[in-house]
Amino acid sequence: MTRVPIAGVGMTAFGRQSERTSRDLFAEAASEAYDDAGLAPEDVDEVFYGNFMGEIAERQGHSGPLAAEAAGVTAPATRVESACASSGVAVRHGVNRIRSGEADVVLVGGAERMTNLSTAEGTAGLATAADALWEIKAGVTFPGAYSLMANRYFHEYGGTREDLAHIAIKNHDNALENDLAQFQRSIDIDDVLTAPTVCSPFGLYDCSPMSDGGSAALLVSEAVAEDRGLGPDVAIVGSGQSSDRMALQDRASMARTPAAERAAETAYGDAGIGPDDVDIAEVHDCFTAAEVFAIEALGFYEAGEGIAAARRGETTIDGELPINLSGGLKAKGHPVGATGCGQISELTKLLRGDHVNSPAVADAEMGLTHNAGGTVASCVVNVLEVMG
Amino acid sequence: MTRVPIAGVGMTAFGRQSERTSRDLFAEAASEAYDDAGLAPEDVDEVFYGNFMGEIAERQGHSGPLAAEAAGVTAPATRVESACASSGVAVRHGVNRIRSGEADVVLVGGAERMTNLSTAEGTAGLATAADALWEIKAGVTFPGAYSLMANRYFHEYGGTREDLAHIAIKNHDNALENDLAQFQRSIDIDDVLTAPTVCSPFGLYDCSPMSDGGSAALLVSEAVAEDRGLGPDVAIVGSGQSSDRMALQDRASMARTPAAERAAETAYGDAGIGPDDVDIAEVHDCFTAAEVFAIEALGFYEAGEGIAAARRGETTIDGELPINLSGGLKAKGHPVGATGCGQISELTKLLRGDHVNSPAVADAEMGLTHNAGGTVASCVVNVLEVMG
Repeated sequence: MTRVPIAGVGMTAFGRQSERTSRDLFAEAASEAYDDAGLAPEDVDEVFYGNFMGEIAERQGHSGPLAAEAAGVTAPATRVESACASSGVAVRHGVNRIRSGEADVVLVGGAERMTNLSTAEGTAGLATAADALWEIKAGVTFPGAYSLMANRYFHEYGGTREDLAHIAIKNHDNALENDLAQFQRSIDIDDVLTAPTVCSPFGLYDCSPMSDGGSAALLVSEAVAEDRGLGPDVAIVGSGQSSDRMALQDRASMARTPAAERAAETAYGDAGIGPDDVDIAEVHDCFTAAEVFAIEALGFYEAGEGIAAARRGETTIDGELPINLSGGLKAKGHPVGATGCGQISELTKLLRGDHVNSPAVADAEMGLTHNAGGTVASCVVNVLEVMG
Repeated sequence: MTRVPIAGVGMTAFGRQSERTSRDLFAEAASEAYDDAGLAPEDVDEVFYGNFMGEIAERQGHSGPLAAEAAGVTAPATRVESACASSGVAVRHGVNRIRSGEADVVLVGGAERMTNLSTAEGTAGLATAADALWEIKAGVTFPGAYSLMANRYFHEYGGTREDLAHIAIKNHDNALENDLAQFQRSIDIDDVLTAPTVCSPFGLYDCSPMSDGGSAALLVSEAVAEDRGLGPDVAIVGSGQSSDRMALQDRASMARTPAAERAAETAYGDAGIGPDDVDIAEVHDCFTAAEVFAIEALGFYEAGEGIAAARRGETTIDGELPINLSGGLKAKGHPVGATGCGQISELTKLLRGDHVNSPAVADAEMGLTHNAGGTVASCVVNVLEVMG
């Protein structure tokens, strides 16, 4: 395992800023990352850029070179698309490129513009992350797909809509003072349970929003970090990616996410740690139930125990294992292509002490990100550690 | 430079097969590659899959896991999208992954379904490879953009439509007996010059067609090739990728393609060779003029000499430097996401002696592929060599 220092991070505010293009959002995030790192565009050897539905929202593909241009770079630039895991995948390939020894500075990140679309257009766009032939033609949307998974989970392990509400409330609380978050307001259990139903068991507050936003990180080799005196505080020490059958119907269980389990296993092995070593985590809560699937797949809780942990408050800021201190996708927002690297940005700030929620977790040394695509047909897990 | 053996290749016929999905096309190509290599899906450590406009043609994104599933693999799978260079980029990242020592067998390739779209839909889809704000809104399509480049080339260096016709005629001749090619028929200069004008100076025969198709290759480490007795005949010995400003208006010259020059420089340096060492090449002739831009950017000819070389027949099957012996994009077809790895498949067969055009170039030991995205805002160059 070679650790990969994070020299700098940047993230736009997530939320409704529908007049801005993806390239503009990424440029802002990259610019912040350069300043944070003390690096310049000329230092960048390669770019990996995550974007999901640019073809639909902006009639814009081929966005690797375009994002690089927006960030002032002409180095090799690759757009990777893995639905909601797009920039998580970008981060992993950046890690691999540094580890290969062939690149010293890699710019990774992503952006998405979504709120310029109508809800119907956005929902149809998001649906391209599922199997067009076997799921979408049957009328399944993403709230529908995750509802199937949640209902199956309830059937196999128990749990209620009230249990899930704790996750929404927690993540809104975590975002309360995060200026980058889309929703900075508390909600209570009545808000969650009386909200309009989207797809049973999910009400409005069980669902992450449509958002616009960009994120970026500068990954560097240890040699460059030292030579240039960059003094990074946090490094990626483990990274894993995995895939699964695309359609829910082809999986052994709708209540489990084995791609996340395999990605975690790889990342833990890579980092030489286990789930018990993780102090804080940012996980892919596109729906409240998705947070339950995540914390079980990551090995933090046994099968069926994730929802009990949420009910008992174990994953709150004061709990044993704070989850989604940024506010998560639920409250921070979910500009799809920006989400995975946005987790890296927020977790880096949390670990190095310059996040609004850092004081509550001042002892945290090891953090993890879990970024999923579709109904977890793809997943990337990264392990971050404070550098000694 | 670590050489990366190509254990097996596969390619569907390119052409109109509009009832088939991209996943189906890729599955066929991957299946052929497994058989060719003597490997099985279980052997694959990672997948890089190129697809350009699945969102538009099939309402299908997130195609990395889907392509992997079609190929029987649950390893980490990443869809890369770099317009017409999508699977060239997939090949390069596969090469990098093998060279890193972290993967022993990587499945790379791509697929595209296009002919199910109307010409207007297809043209609009292809346009997402250009700058949506600064080119497409002004009404530029790809034939239009390349026409601007060709006219500028004529202005700077001379040349005529008749000169370009030689390229179309040559590539049709090369495809004559290639069963995988979309067009297996000769054309003459009258055909070219009397064809309907698409965008001056291009007539119909100056333009590559809309096509459906899939391509795949299995890249392996030398250790695995030896341990498993795979006996690959050809290896990738150099690989380079580069980017440029997206919009033509932002470039220093519309008659040059510096991203291709930089990608070639990297690939040559990587391989420890120069342009004079290349015996045959597959280049990105999406339009006849694009072949001229390519052979100049690759250093085969000085600026302004590429068109003269075409006129003099130096790049025919009997010439000094045969270009596009597969028939090129022009006659073999151009299913966008499949094109880059399709070049690898055809060149591998040419070099190892099992292509219909191999006998004419029996002494060829070193080959090159040049795969461009958009108006060469991205480019990948790979150097292939017969293994000693």
